[in-house]
Amino acid sequence: MKLLITGFDPFGGEKTNPAIEAVKRLPAAIAGATVVPLEIPTVFGTCAEVVRQAIITERPDVVLSVGQAGGRSALTPERIAINLDDGRIPDNAGFQPVDQPIQPNGPAAYFTQLPVKAMAQAIRQAGLPSHVSTTAGTYVCNHIMYQVQHLRATEFPQLQAGFIHIPFLPEQVVQRSGVPSLSLTDDVRGLTAAIRAIVIAHAD
Amino acid sequence: MKLLITGFDPFGGEKTNPAIEAVKRLPAAIAGATVVPLEIPTVFGTCAEVVRQAIITERPDVVLSVGQAGGRSALTPERIAINLDDGRIPDNAGFQPVDQPIQPNGPAAYFTQLPVKAMAQAIRQAGLPSHVSTTAGTYVCNHIMYQVQHLRATEFPQLQAGFIHIPFLPEQVVQRSGVPSLSLTDDVRGLTAAIRAIVIAHAD
Amino acid sequence: MKLLITGFDPFGGEKTNPAIEAVKRLPAAIAGATVVPLEIPTVFGTCAEVVRQAIITERPDVVLSVGQAGGRSALTPERIAINLDDGRIPDNAGFQPVDQPIQPNGPAAYFTQLPVKAMAQAIRQAGLPSHVSTTAGTYVCNHIMYQVQHLRATEFPQLQAGFIHIPFLPEQVVQRSGVPSLSLTDDVRGLTAAIRAIVIAHAD
Amino acid sequence: MKLLITGFDPFGGEKTNPAIEAVKRLPAAIAGATVVPLEIPTVFGTCAEVVRQAIITERPDVVLSVGQAGGRSALTPERIAINLDDGRIPDNAGFQPVDQPIQPNGPAAYFTQLPVKAMAQAIRQAGLPSHVSTTAGTYVCNHIMYQVQHLRATEFPQLQAGFIHIPFLPEQVVQRSGVPSLSLTDDVRGLTAAIRAIVIAHAD
Repeated sequence: MKLLITGFDPFGGEKTNPAIEAVKRLPAAIAGATVVPLEIPTVFGTCAEVVRQAIITERPDVVLSVGQAGGRSALTPERIAINLDDGRIPDNAGFQPVDQPIQPNGPAAYFTQLPVKAMAQAIRQAGLPSHVSTTAGTYVCNHIMYQVQHLRATEFPQLQAGFIHIPFLPEQVVQRSGVPSLSLTDDVRGLTAAIRAIVIAHAD
Repeated sequence: MKLLITGFDPFGGEKTNPAIEAVKRLPAAIAGATVVPLEIPTVFGTCAEVVRQAIITERPDVVLSVGQAGGRSALTPERIAINLDDGRIPDNAGFQPVDQPIQPNGPAAYFTQLPVKAMAQAIRQAGLPSHVSTTAGTYVCNHIMYQVQHLRATEFPQLQAGFIHIPFLPEQVVQRSGVPSLSLTDDVRGLTAAIRAIVIAHAD
Repeated sequence: MKLLITGFDPFGGEKTNPAIEAVKRLPAAIAGATVVPLEIPTVFGTCAEVVRQAIITERPDVVLSVGQAGGRSALTPERIAINLDDGRIPDNAGFQPVDQPIQPNGPAAYFTQLPVKAMAQAIRQAGLPSHVSTTAGTYVCNHIMYQVQHLRATEFPQLQAGFIHIPFLPEQVVQRSGVPSLSLTDDVRGLTAAIRAIVIAHAD
Repeated sequence: MKLLITGFDPFGGEKTNPAIEAVKRLPAAIAGATVVPLEIPTVFGTCAEVVRQAIITERPDVVLSVGQAGGRSALTPERIAINLDDGRIPDNAGFQPVDQPIQPNGPAAYFTQLPVKAMAQAIRQAGLPSHVSTTAGTYVCNHIMYQVQHLRATEFPQLQAGFIHIPFLPEQVVQRSGVPSLSLTDDVRGLTAAIRAIVIAHAD
């Protein structure tokens, strides 16, 4: 079994993005499954094309995308992606879609195939806060989650895919009074637990 | 130079207390100064007696007490301790004072002698969130901070003393949606940076 | 033009529900349109049947459902409803669905037809906090929003429908430290502004 | 019995200040006691001089000062004022003290004489959120609370005095996502309940 784990590069004036930093530090194998990390650009459209090429090249069984959710205190597997781009800030290519469908002929939303409750429980059993989320927002995180589901619906029917949001790193909240954070070590530990839950569910 | 660093044991139904866990993991020397860790009980009155004995035995230049502030997202050096015990829950000996002065003849409050802004800045420079706090609450944290100041005022005039609050550990917020946490590694790193700032200020 | 405005009755141990209290206090006409209030039970399934009967009887142009979102500080028009019932607590009939589709053959989600950004802006212009939300949760609020959309898709194609969440009332947070609230007067004022925005958009 | 109730004018770029707006709307008598409202400038030093003149002129039994605590969700009677000015922003005269004692020869802190727990309970019985606070900050709110206590200690020994913080108004958080607010009507209702508790305690 092979998992492609994607992480976004920094955006919004941040110097780092916990997503790609954590993804780069994942072990090469978890519970016997191969883990392939992939950095993707924080750019609407382009990020999906990069993932599509990697799906063709790597032929993964699962795509798990990881993104930063500034302000959240827990690791939050996402249930659903919606067919909407609505950026509060421009992406890294300067593009800021407002109330645009991602796929004009696509469905309103796609549910993930991943076992989000088992993932959240596995993260909590690893001693880290986690709960299932019902919104991935309307920025690139929701975008890539929707796009990978749409690739599944149109090109790669065997694929399972999903998304998990992680908090800011402590270094990102140094100047943000009251905003929660989580360390990179804990992100890696939490993602590893979540991926193990995916592998176990896949084997059943 | 010698610093006595105190940490409370677990209370309020928690299995762990980040304070004593972090204190136990501090290096034995920071910036050339000796660090002496001391576990103290979460008990009004008794905790102060334990610290007093350690001051007599160890003759430290500085006493820094560390306590858990569940709900805070940053490490927060405290400016001031107030002459008031008012427990929301009983202490570990079952005692729950309500609106009691700590020292009936003591002043309303004591300011710390520690360089709280330099400590907060040093923690931030270590990549961790920190700001100065103006309330240590009315439970054992404020109690020990006030009591050590009162010992200074009445018995140990050379002593410098203060308090720093640290967040919950991630494992403590597993069932607490939306509550921030910080890892033990980061606590140790942050406390080390704060202690270094104390040592540097002391040398000036 | 006629609007049917639904509000849930109290649930989860609360003595009141700001939704129905606010809906009952709306003016009978807003911007020339007729406002028909409707109390609905906090019960999966049944609440939708009650709304369906009222649609048949009242033949409204718009159905706007109102619900309580404890913990939010603003009035939040919802963009989308998802095909999922997942109750953290039982409903008022004791039913607690877990990870159940609302309509087994329905789409994953429905977007609202209401002008959510104009509604949020109108509320802000009335001096009250508001922003568009992308999750109505997985309890009865999302349920009724999805069900009314499904009625639109299957029975009432002319209907426009949507949902708005409102905060706790101050009296509900008396024992909840740190939880935001909004007064009933402000709820009525905010809902009135939102309904006016709907009527204006409908006329265009 | 006579109460002087002070409220600050707007500061920090705000167009309004809930403190003075609420104070102006208080009834002229509460529980048989006379209520004298007084607008004071958000200026270190000057605000205290204005209150001192009013104490001389009005000869009140109680001075209750009211101030805005942006970010809090409840009305919070303050227990204690500390001898420290430390402004995050300049006051309305452009003065921004940093780590300055308010009274170089004054005590570290003064406790209020007002029945803060009875006040908080009375506010909650009026259906509004309230709890006792142990920090009035280090800006003009703490400043006036300390200064009035110092006037009591040095000039007006019969005086009882204290402070209560109130949240932002809804109109102030229109652009602040996630920040709680409370309506002016509720502020007036809560302050009235708190003042009634003061009058009752004074009569005992």
